[in-house]
Amino acid sequence: MQTIDLNCDMGEAFGNYPMPNDEILLDHITSANIACGFHAGDPEVMQHTVALAIKKDVAIGAHPGLPDLQGFGRREMKISANEAYQITMYQIGALFGFVKAAGGKLHHVKAHGALYNMAAKDPSLAKAIVQAVHDFDSTLILYGLAGSEMIEAAKKIGIITASEVFADRTYQDDGSLTPRSQSNALITNEQQSINQVLQMVKHQQVQSVSNKNIPLKAETLCLHGDGSHAVEFAKLINEKLKAEGITIKAPGV
Amino acid sequence: MQTIDLNCDMGEAFGNYPMPNDEILLDHITSANIACGFHAGDPEVMQHTVALAIKKDVAIGAHPGLPDLQGFGRREMKISANEAYQITMYQIGALFGFVKAAGGKLHHVKAHGALYNMAAKDPSLAKAIVQAVHDFDSTLILYGLAGSEMIEAAKKIGIITASEVFADRTYQDDGSLTPRSQSNALITNEQQSINQVLQMVKHQQVQSVSNKNIPLKAETLCLHGDGSHAVEFAKLINEKLKAEGITIKAPGV
Amino acid sequence: MQTIDLNCDMGEAFGNYPMPNDEILLDHITSANIACGFHAGDPEVMQHTVALAIKKDVAIGAHPGLPDLQGFGRREMKISANEAYQITMYQIGALFGFVKAAGGKLHHVKAHGALYNMAAKDPSLAKAIVQAVHDFDSTLILYGLAGSEMIEAAKKIGIITASEVFADRTYQDDGSLTPRSQSNALITNEQQSINQVLQMVKHQQVQSVSNKNIPLKAETLCLHGDGSHAVEFAKLINEKLKAEGITIKAPGV
Amino acid sequence: MQTIDLNCDMGEAFGNYPMPNDEILLDHITSANIACGFHAGDPEVMQHTVALAIKKDVAIGAHPGLPDLQGFGRREMKISANEAYQITMYQIGALFGFVKAAGGKLHHVKAHGALYNMAAKDPSLAKAIVQAVHDFDSTLILYGLAGSEMIEAAKKIGIITASEVFADRTYQDDGSLTPRSQSNALITNEQQSINQVLQMVKHQQVQSVSNKNIPLKAETLCLHGDGSHAVEFAKLINEKLKAEGITIKAPGV
Repeated sequence: MQTIDLNCDMGEAFGNYPMPNDEILLDHITSANIACGFHAGDPEVMQHTVALAIKKDVAIGAHPGLPDLQGFGRREMKISANEAYQITMYQIGALFGFVKAAGGKLHHVKAHGALYNMAAKDPSLAKAIVQAVHDFDSTLILYGLAGSEMIEAAKKIGIITASEVFADRTYQDDGSLTPRSQSNALITNEQQSINQVLQMVKHQQVQSVSNKNIPLKAETLCLHGDGSHAVEFAKLINEKLKAEGITIKAPGV
Repeated sequence: MQTIDLNCDMGEAFGNYPMPNDEILLDHITSANIACGFHAGDPEVMQHTVALAIKKDVAIGAHPGLPDLQGFGRREMKISANEAYQITMYQIGALFGFVKAAGGKLHHVKAHGALYNMAAKDPSLAKAIVQAVHDFDSTLILYGLAGSEMIEAAKKIGIITASEVFADRTYQDDGSLTPRSQSNALITNEQQSINQVLQMVKHQQVQSVSNKNIPLKAETLCLHGDGSHAVEFAKLINEKLKAEGITIKAPGV
Repeated sequence: MQTIDLNCDMGEAFGNYPMPNDEILLDHITSANIACGFHAGDPEVMQHTVALAIKKDVAIGAHPGLPDLQGFGRREMKISANEAYQITMYQIGALFGFVKAAGGKLHHVKAHGALYNMAAKDPSLAKAIVQAVHDFDSTLILYGLAGSEMIEAAKKIGIITASEVFADRTYQDDGSLTPRSQSNALITNEQQSINQVLQMVKHQQVQSVSNKNIPLKAETLCLHGDGSHAVEFAKLINEKLKAEGITIKAPGV
Repeated sequence: MQTIDLNCDMGEAFGNYPMPNDEILLDHITSANIACGFHAGDPEVMQHTVALAIKKDVAIGAHPGLPDLQGFGRREMKISANEAYQITMYQIGALFGFVKAAGGKLHHVKAHGALYNMAAKDPSLAKAIVQAVHDFDSTLILYGLAGSEMIEAAKKIGIITASEVFADRTYQDDGSLTPRSQSNALITNEQQSINQVLQMVKHQQVQSVSNKNIPLKAETLCLHGDGSHAVEFAKLINEKLKAEGITIKAPGV
């Protein structure tokens, strides 16, 4: 039986600034990556989002980012491997507090934004991040870009991985994402997005920008939480996958 | 056999700004209250300080403060009880990550600065903070001002407490600290400080500013980590207490 | 001829978090109080908001707040008078840079949130803030709560003031705002708000909660920028005032 | 008559963390680059440092850095040219407030740390920074690495420049600094430092690591403010330069 996890970044509100889609999105996903206060989120938002995820029985992940609230963790920073380890550990621990207090279970870790992208390519950052995950709790699952250094590093250290794929990004022949700087990086057509997802989940392959079918491990699908269309697309892809007989659930659950 | 714990705030360096006394102070104390990044400390400092404390076999406590790095957590902020719970939980969790990863054990929690002082007097803040400690791990020990609302709240919720006393502060007839705004608030004479400590530890009482001997529970003595004299005084008080046959150790250890 | 200024807090977006009403609100107001990065706003938002205000010919004010982004500057902090001076100066200067670069003119200063409220009652904070305004540029206009210590302090030091009144708050017999903790603090009925504004602007008095007509200096009316109804109300009050023959313009312009 | 400016980063204390050398260093330098709160410094430190610089008749410069307090502005961040413009403008303005209030004069701008290094090589960042300087006040002097893109960009836009050289860094044949990653990047021998400075100031050339004498514009010499040796070296180089008949003064003063 084929399965896929639907994950979404959550708890990216901050102080006076809401993220109104969070609660309803939780009805359509199986994994919530909850921001930990560095790129977004704050202690109140974290507590609230953890409570919602538990109530809706969605697997909870820590979503550590770079210490750059203004840049939403999307601006690359030259941090050392030690710094990557430290900021990952700090943020996992901070979220863990709320999860433990609420009687929940921390399930996975997914790096955010520039930290995710940098570690996908840089073996030393990847190793540092998975080391932090491992040292905190070696049963946590590492969500990382399919085919990336993060997945490699997690396997080496012996923690479980979930390879992540995208509905709205195109792929190169080598399985990497087309850089956003290129005009064909994004898939804006909804049907095309759905087709790509179904191909990835059912056949573990994707059609690249040069029309080759290339293998791609698809264990968790990243859905976006912002934008007016986010909720509708989450609902739609959820329905389409179920209609194909695919089980939607978090890995290891 | 009489015992006392010597505690000191630790890990209050930040980024490029060092706190050079930390390592040597750990030779003379039994409990380290490690800053968690809100009023001082950062992920690198926290990892480093936790490692030092484990190496020197000093009990590790989380030292959560108000989110005010510039004010070093010393400026009162009107926060709600919920906010007090949330910032306490966040910071305990963040420190716990480093302690767990290093194979250590989180032993206690002591609030910092204005948070400590506000909660000493305000039952709702006190309750919120001890609730966070309890919800994270009900075996953690709460360090709080002797006779304060913090100690009351911790007892009510059923967590172990350590009543804290000061070597360099004078006391009122009701057992409260003389406010810093008064000229006789501080004890600057070293011998007088030592005498007060010995009286508190040996007789569980203190001579107030009006020369009355009043009862005071003395389970942990706060030593200051900054200032040129800090290391010498820590060493001295440690020796004086031992010379009186008093055992210096962290509570419950 | 009767005149009134309509002011609104602006530029309170931050990083990834938008404040979508700002541009359209500028069509209905005459003074924009632009956040300076402490309670909200960031350098990008400030540059953008200054450009919009210049384009729409709205008077630009600095809107300094407490250094508390998570609390949106609404949580009281015990700061000294020196600290109030320093954070006011820093933020005025920061905004001035963008105004000068864009060829505009800094017109006024209005403190934000808890800083506004604290200084309304505390003569030493009020004096420190108006001193900073004066020292930066003694021709700047100080917007402050009608009848408050801020207005007093500004008059003493010799800077021009604009007394601020509210459409959606009730008033006590002594001219102070009914505290938000009381059930009758807010006016939620639109017509009642409009009536209060017209009475204040036309007659320089307001009907208190005990139905007395009390004198109140009304030189600038504070409009709220957030909430779905904000734009409509700004448009409506603007039209109602004009229909009564009242000139809407910034003070001194 | 030969002249050189001696500049030093100043006001890099923060909150509870002092930078004790600042006051005495001001006796030996002619330009102070004052931190503006992003990488170091805070409103109190800025006010205090500006007052000291005015008292000691040292030229005041804004020293804008990346928004990275923990990293002291030394970690590269991928910021856009617009963001470079905005953070430069914000920080110049913020410092200007204190300078204006104290009756002083803002004299120059020098970018800090990673912002300085990134802009030295990246023409678009360099252009953005000098544009901000120009737009704020086109009579400000831009301090930048001798031979860098910053100097180029400033010349193009028509603002005055001061080419900066280093006493403790070695130079490559192309006039660039030897990267810190190389073992021979730093000059640790005091006499060698002095010799290099004298050669640079007297002959406008420097001996490269491959022993070639290469031309180098030396208008301002960067002295370091931290470290136990900083004050002594500042005093020493000041004396050595004067002994050679060289005038020590800020550019344009």
